[in-house]
Amino acid sequence: MTKSFAALLLAAVPLPLLAQVGDVRRIDMGRVTQLRDGALRDDLAYAITEGLTTEVGQRAAGTPAEARARDWAVRRLRALGFANVRVDPFTMPVWVRGAESADIVAPYPQKLVIAALGNSASTPPGGISGEVIGFSSVEALRAARPEQVRGRIVYITHAMPKTQDGSGYGVFGAPRRQGPTVASQKGAAAIVIRSIGTDWHRNPHTGVMSFADGARPIPAGALSNPDADQLERILARAQGPVTMRLTLLSQQLANQPSGNVIAEVPGRDRQAAPVLVACHLDSWDQGTGAIDDAAGCGIVTAAAKRIMDAGRPLRPIRIVWFGAEEVGLFGGLDYRAKYGKQPHHAIAESDFGADRIWKVDSRLGPDRKAEAEALRQALQPLGIVPGSLEEADGSDIGPLLEDGLPGVGLNQDGTRYFDLHHTPDDTLDKVDPVQMRQNVAAWTATLAVLSGGIEPRARGRRR
Amino acid sequence: MTKSFAALLLAAVPLPLLAQVGDVRRIDMGRVTQLRDGALRDDLAYAITEGLTTEVGQRAAGTPAEARARDWAVRRLRALGFANVRVDPFTMPVWVRGAESADIVAPYPQKLVIAALGNSASTPPGGISGEVIGFSSVEALRAARPEQVRGRIVYITHAMPKTQDGSGYGVFGAPRRQGPTVASQKGAAAIVIRSIGTDWHRNPHTGVMSFADGARPIPAGALSNPDADQLERILARAQGPVTMRLTLLSQQLANQPSGNVIAEVPGRDRQAAPVLVACHLDSWDQGTGAIDDAAGCGIVTAAAKRIMDAGRPLRPIRIVWFGAEEVGLFGGLDYRAKYGKQPHHAIAESDFGADRIWKVDSRLGPDRKAEAEALRQALQPLGIVPGSLEEADGSDIGPLLEDGLPGVGLNQDGTRYFDLHHTPDDTLDKVDPVQMRQNVAAWTATLAVLSGGIEPRARGRRR
Repeated sequence: MTKSFAALLLAAVPLPLLAQVGDVRRIDMGRVTQLRDGALRDDLAYAITEGLTTEVGQRAAGTPAEARARDWAVRRLRALGFANVRVDPFTMPVWVRGAESADIVAPYPQKLVIAALGNSASTPPGGISGEVIGFSSVEALRAARPEQVRGRIVYITHAMPKTQDGSGYGVFGAPRRQGPTVASQKGAAAIVIRSIGTDWHRNPHTGVMSFADGARPIPAGALSNPDADQLERILARAQGPVTMRLTLLSQQLANQPSGNVIAEVPGRDRQAAPVLVACHLDSWDQGTGAIDDAAGCGIVTAAAKRIMDAGRPLRPIRIVWFGAEEVGLFGGLDYRAKYGKQPHHAIAESDFGADRIWKVDSRLGPDRKAEAEALRQALQPLGIVPGSLEEADGSDIGPLLEDGLPGVGLNQDGTRYFDLHHTPDDTLDKVDPVQMRQNVAAWTATLAVLSGGIEPRARGRRR
Repeated sequence: MTKSFAALLLAAVPLPLLAQVGDVRRIDMGRVTQLRDGALRDDLAYAITEGLTTEVGQRAAGTPAEARARDWAVRRLRALGFANVRVDPFTMPVWVRGAESADIVAPYPQKLVIAALGNSASTPPGGISGEVIGFSSVEALRAARPEQVRGRIVYITHAMPKTQDGSGYGVFGAPRRQGPTVASQKGAAAIVIRSIGTDWHRNPHTGVMSFADGARPIPAGALSNPDADQLERILARAQGPVTMRLTLLSQQLANQPSGNVIAEVPGRDRQAAPVLVACHLDSWDQGTGAIDDAAGCGIVTAAAKRIMDAGRPLRPIRIVWFGAEEVGLFGGLDYRAKYGKQPHHAIAESDFGADRIWKVDSRLGPDRKAEAEALRQALQPLGIVPGSLEEADGSDIGPLLEDGLPGVGLNQDGTRYFDLHHTPDDTLDKVDPVQMRQNVAAWTATLAVLSGGIEPRARGRRR
């Protein structure tokens, strides 16, 4: 039923048609189309991305830069006319990067380019020296005898490919996520990994990791891919031990301030559960966080603004620019603690760059198939493939999805995402404004469907 | 005449044909073809490039790393069987990079990524602070009133495009070459330029500059292109002054050792003038100098080795891996001083990466048109366009060409060269082995023609 129903809806374009089925009955699909296609001319998403990355730049979680970013966000969201713009504060532990270097001492003295991983232990100021022992995978490290590893600097490589859906990140991210704990448990002095990334530039990919209970924290860093290649060549041809001097300075601060920035488009139905659209405000510390995730904030905010300017949706739209995502989803967990028990009509997040959306997943439940199908049909003209009806994902909203809240996943093309992810190279020039507009169009259509139908405001209200 | 003559030569392939005209009469063009095409399977050029960049890495002119590179080169060239392998030493002043940083202090505090230019003055250890004033070109800076510039930090941008022939580097390199002197003459505290490069990564392009007579040296650095964009956005939107804190530490050392590494393939005619094939051994200090210029050394050496292995050329081939090219052609000038008055049959250099050769120029003189034409015909099957008969170029050999020595120019595709040039990103992974082999084939054919014909060695000699 749902397919032909939705086809009927779209066939009616541009004539308005009131849906006759279930939850989507108030939705004028002609209006959805109009809003969607109008958003292909959007310039707000890019302007937000440019403004945040230029006027604040990097905004590492729990730092003064993230606080400036919250101030910037509140000013911008208020200026755009959103309601109830506010900060939900929380505190968190903060890891702060210091000086870092990795030098091959023998047999071929030279500098390699390295970045510490988040939560790395600090070396002494003068660094540590040790023999490097290389492994092809975390499994190979697990299989090593402790005496092979003890006191040495472990190196782990991997062969992460570019994938459209970013699925390489899960499997090939193991050296970062599990490697430090395994190395520590075997008595390693430190661990150095090949960057979890798919590019060939001298910019290492940082990222968070944590030591499993009982594992003593050790220094942990990532080499850029060309430097990882270099170390592997050196390990392969050295006749004797390969010695590295590694300096990774950092400090840990307790109870630093962070917060979620929240704004709303009020709904006509004051009792209705909100549609939550999310992104994260914090970034890693070396780039300006353009694709991760200023772009996401620009995209969802521009879409919500288009709905707000078109009239009043049935349900409220809640925009959340989450704080402290990169280092442990602190913002998402704070939101869950405060609002996770309240009903949400749907939740969705944009946090995978700004390249085009290629697939829509949703998990709205068995009684909302018509709504899911209307969403698929509304997105198809943007070149978006219908995906699962049983899945949704998102980083900050992950805990809420785990709790069972209904969600939508607008999947961006991640082919080049891991070229840039968590590197100094995550800068504004990497955002393609044309692809970004397709994102805004998709989110606008999604909000037009999920928000339950938009009615023009009375003239007096629009001033 | 020459065209049909050379066509005849090639038409005779694979049958050997002794040329009947002028200087090329001893050349067996069938043999040239055979040697050329055999070189498309070469792996020596890549092995040399890999070895030098892995076992030595960066090798800045006049430093201990360049000395290690000379030792490496002598060992490798001797092991390959070349004759008269030696170092021609000289001394030179050396500029050594120290710590460097550029921070926007106001209105939007953030770090930019910068690299000092070679011969930059050093700031005090704590850096200097100043207001940034931006210019669209060196001409715009020249037109500025001194009171606009005095005591400020000058910024100059440009719009360098990618070009196949690298011609953008001349025009758009002006901010680096002339900007520091002009800024100093107008009383600027320092100068910061957009990197002379065509990429979009956070790796600044360094390079040498010098202050014209009478201009006081000032600190001079290059921002990466994304950081230059960022500074331009900040300058465009700031309501008040844009303040930068700039730290560019460096030191100047007098009389440091450098040298040219020379090797030879002996000729049958002991009186014959040599064919000189060149590259440079030194690199900038942040990458491993793979495309600039380990690849060039690999290419010309592999080609010479192929000639040597094929038999004895009429004329000697002289291979020179020049020292200290990047910082002022010290090696080329030393060679000219020592050997510039001696006759050379032809001189040529590979110093523009490892991408395919697309055009051959030559300047062999009016009495050697047949030789030039034979060279063109030998290269055409490799997809190499015949270029000028009145031009040749090369960096280290530039002074010799200015003196009027006959030369050949095998022009590499430079479209992506200035993405990598003088950055940390100049690493081995940027070398395409397939395109590199086309280079070796072209140089092998070139040497087969220029060396005047190869005779098989007596069996006893080949051991």
